Amino acid sequence: MSRILTGVQSTGRPHMGNILGAIIPAIELANNPENDSFLFIADLHSLTQIKNPKTLSENTLQVAAAWLACGLDPNKTTFYRQSDVPECTELAWYLNCFFPYQRLKLAHSFKDKSDRLEDINSGLFTYPMLMASDILLYDANYVPVGKDQLQHLEMTRDVASRVNNKYGEIFVIPEVKLQENTQLIPGTDGEKMSKSRENTIDLFQDPKQIKKIINKNIITDDTPLEAPKDPQSSTVYQLFQLIASSEKSLKMKENLKAGGYGWGHAKKELVDELVNSFAPQREKFNYYLNNPSEVESVLIKGAEKAKKVANTTLNRFRKTLGYNI
Amino acid sequence: MSRILTGVQSTGRPHMGNILGAIIPAIELANNPENDSFLFIADLHSLTQIKNPKTLSENTLQVAAAWLACGLDPNKTTFYRQSDVPECTELAWYLNCFFPYQRLKLAHSFKDKSDRLEDINSGLFTYPMLMASDILLYDANYVPVGKDQLQHLEMTRDVASRVNNKYGEIFVIPEVKLQENTQLIPGTDGEKMSKSRENTIDLFQDPKQIKKIINKNIITDDTPLEAPKDPQSSTVYQLFQLIASSEKSLKMKENLKAGGYGWGHAKKELVDELVNSFAPQREKFNYYLNNPSEVESVLIKGAEKAKKVANTTLNRFRKTLGYNI
Repeated sequence: MSRILTGVQSTGRPHMGNILGAIIPAIELANNPENDSFLFIADLHSLTQIKNPKTLSENTLQVAAAWLACGLDPNKTTFYRQSDVPECTELAWYLNCFFPYQRLKLAHSFKDKSDRLEDINSGLFTYPMLMASDILLYDANYVPVGKDQLQHLEMTRDVASRVNNKYGEIFVIPEVKLQENTQLIPGTDGEKMSKSRENTIDLFQDPKQIKKIINKNIITDDTPLEAPKDPQSSTVYQLFQLIASSEKSLKMKENLKAGGYGWGHAKKELVDELVNSFAPQREKFNYYLNNPSEVESVLIKGAEKAKKVANTTLNRFRKTLGYNI
Repeated sequence: MSRILTGVQSTGRPHMGNILGAIIPAIELANNPENDSFLFIADLHSLTQIKNPKTLSENTLQVAAAWLACGLDPNKTTFYRQSDVPECTELAWYLNCFFPYQRLKLAHSFKDKSDRLEDINSGLFTYPMLMASDILLYDANYVPVGKDQLQHLEMTRDVASRVNNKYGEIFVIPEVKLQENTQLIPGTDGEKMSKSRENTIDLFQDPKQIKKIINKNIITDDTPLEAPKDPQSSTVYQLFQLIASSEKSLKMKENLKAGGYGWGHAKKELVDELVNSFAPQREKFNYYLNNPSEVESVLIKGAEKAKKVANTTLNRFRKTLGYNI
């Protein structure tokens, strides 16, 4: 059995792109009985940019509610909040003492962020060692990451190897599991769906709002109702085939090609599909938002499980370093 | 009542210069009933340079034994090991997120160390935020520091003010208590006593060894026995008057000036004074070294007291930041 660890950014209410592109694939990976899955909400990392306590805690609640609503099973996955296992900050200090400053300075992500962000704090700079700590604390075998996180994973492997070379097998060296951009989820403008482009679809919102967004924000061409239309170049069809059954998708494709089927028809079918196929998740998500203590209780239980593993690793390393355990 | 916090570097067996110049003055400060004193052995900081577990833990034992032997009263002073309160690493992460990277880069001590040391790790770079955390975690009012630590204290005050300006009175802003170089303790060569100059006197060692060191390492001039001698330019007299009573010191001074009193006589008096006046401390120190579990028990009790204060501060800040407490 392999331990897979995934860190989830705590950036607030996930949109359709997050759900289809990241959350559902990760849940499938987690539910694979061959994997022992750890999944945490990286709310200590959030502090590098979010200094408003209400935003910080609401983001965490919404992210947790979304994962639970989309089918994450906390009995199968150790699901916790990073800040509930502050042991990771202790390990981060030790790792900092084994990682050359000059190498940390080479981190691309810090350079990128320094160019983009206003609040360039020391946390942002040392973050790769917190990330390394999050991974090494749990003896993770595999860490699924996007391309942008590859260098951080290399730093994790680097610092773990430095420690192991000195003291023997303290840490499991994690393998990278590069997440190919499997699916591009288009936003309402046809470009990649992302918050910053303001082209997102919120699947958890009221169905009336979903209808409004689809009708208003997806631009269609002025091909007359009777004329044949190209499904592949249409955002409506692109989105539809991501969530509808293959039969339904094929049918819409044929309807569009045949003509006599307008964008209004297609949009209506898309809205119905978005509304209906995500109805259970929408209901659950809103239930969790209205019952935050249930989410809290799930996260606290997860943190208890995570802490046990974390403290075993931490004590192993503390003893090796010459500290009291 | 003011809370005074002192961090002690865990650099191993203290020599006479450490004892007279730092340990005894700090114990006097701590024993002042107007002060609520916290004193810790900075063994997390040590990891920036000491990667050998035996050295790390032995250094801590020797430092703790020396302070206890010299009269530190753990009932009056909260005396603990930094690594037993890893809460400070958690607070350090939060503080890192509030401190500009560019300011951390300005730290003189890091530049100095980068020039001197081989192991220039990220811990060395972020250390000022760990130091800030050690101070702010305990609501310290005063921090006695040497000149070399003044900038770190300024950084501590800076990051605390940034947090307080944003969220209200979270932290006590510590006042600096600059330790003037009150007493220069000369080494056997007459220069300032320091490990790196190899001119130290170990007061805890066997009296025979003390005699050997004084006789062999303190160079005296070849003024004949009968001739008058200058006490002020003599290391023997300098050391003697630091520890002997004023009557005894005056007598040696007069003897030297009068002539007919040789360096051998003076050295013998110095050895007797070093051996006798530190006999109780020597005995206690060696007792503690042979009974490390007693030291351990003192430090563990101290850490329990320190943890209570640390967790109160930490929870206050966590709640403010939007984290679970």
